[in-house]
Amino acid sequence: MQVNYINPVLDSLVNVLGTMAAMKVRPGKPSIKTEQSARGDVTGVMSMFGPAARGSIAITFTAPVILELAQRMLRETYPGINEMVVDLAGEITNMVIGGAKAKLEEQGHKFDMSLPTLVAGANHIVMHKTQGKTVIMPFETDYGSFFVELCFE
Amino acid sequence: MQVNYINPVLDSLVNVLGTMAAMKVRPGKPSIKTEQSARGDVTGVMSMFGPAARGSIAITFTAPVILELAQRMLRETYPGINEMVVDLAGEITNMVIGGAKAKLEEQGHKFDMSLPTLVAGANHIVMHKTQGKTVIMPFETDYGSFFVELCFE
Repeated sequence: MQVNYINPVLDSLVNVLGTMAAMKVRPGKPSIKTEQSARGDVTGVMSMFGPAARGSIAITFTAPVILELAQRMLRETYPGINEMVVDLAGEITNMVIGGAKAKLEEQGHKFDMSLPTLVAGANHIVMHKTQGKTVIMPFETDYGSFFVELCFE
Repeated sequence: MQVNYINPVLDSLVNVLGTMAAMKVRPGKPSIKTEQSARGDVTGVMSMFGPAARGSIAITFTAPVILELAQRMLRETYPGINEMVVDLAGEITNMVIGGAKAKLEEQGHKFDMSLPTLVAGANHIVMHKTQGKTVIMPFETDYGSFFVELCFE
């Protein structure tokens, strides 16, 4: 059940952004995604493979949030999304999913992780091709919002 | 070596689009991706996991190509990219990678495949976060171009 994955991902995300960027994140209420309305500017996608389930996780940042994170984590002010910023989104995706994987393994869910694939482009949408449902987890910061999509078979 | 994966993916792609859509595809010369210049409008991303390597494959369509494929495969004329068209891109990605997987298994390379994740958005770029290199394979059709990116550790 993908509901088991929600808290480990949420905890890991709050922990990574708090520790690495001193950014406070306010998690919203997770819900089943019903329309392709969530849009962002940079997305990191990773797949997880385990004996019991396979799934994919996407973290989609809006430009103001990832640019603020770049300022805090790389100490650089960029006027817009460039290769360094996309790379940082990949690094964050990797750390968040890696942290969630460690928590899930403590609970007996063993997984392999894929390499992150990054997508950059203004206002893109992400969809997951699966029989299962997609859970969307919104997050608010002082700089705008971002969201995580979680999709497991 | 990711060079082993090039021909199975290429053959599978030409086969799927030829069989399912009667669309002739002219493969260009694969090359190592050096800049983030390749842009598209719909991308399907899948990961492959094997004992020897893990990697990701992205198939990125420009709008004219995927809309023509929708006309041929779904017998529907859409004015632009909608959920049906994105779903078709996911289906094609699944079939192409599934065909490549079968060929690779014949050669002794066993893999698991992830679920496809789809991205829609005008002129987006795809990047792969890896130590390895990314191979970009361009394809031409009478309706425009599209490309496959292949990235293995």
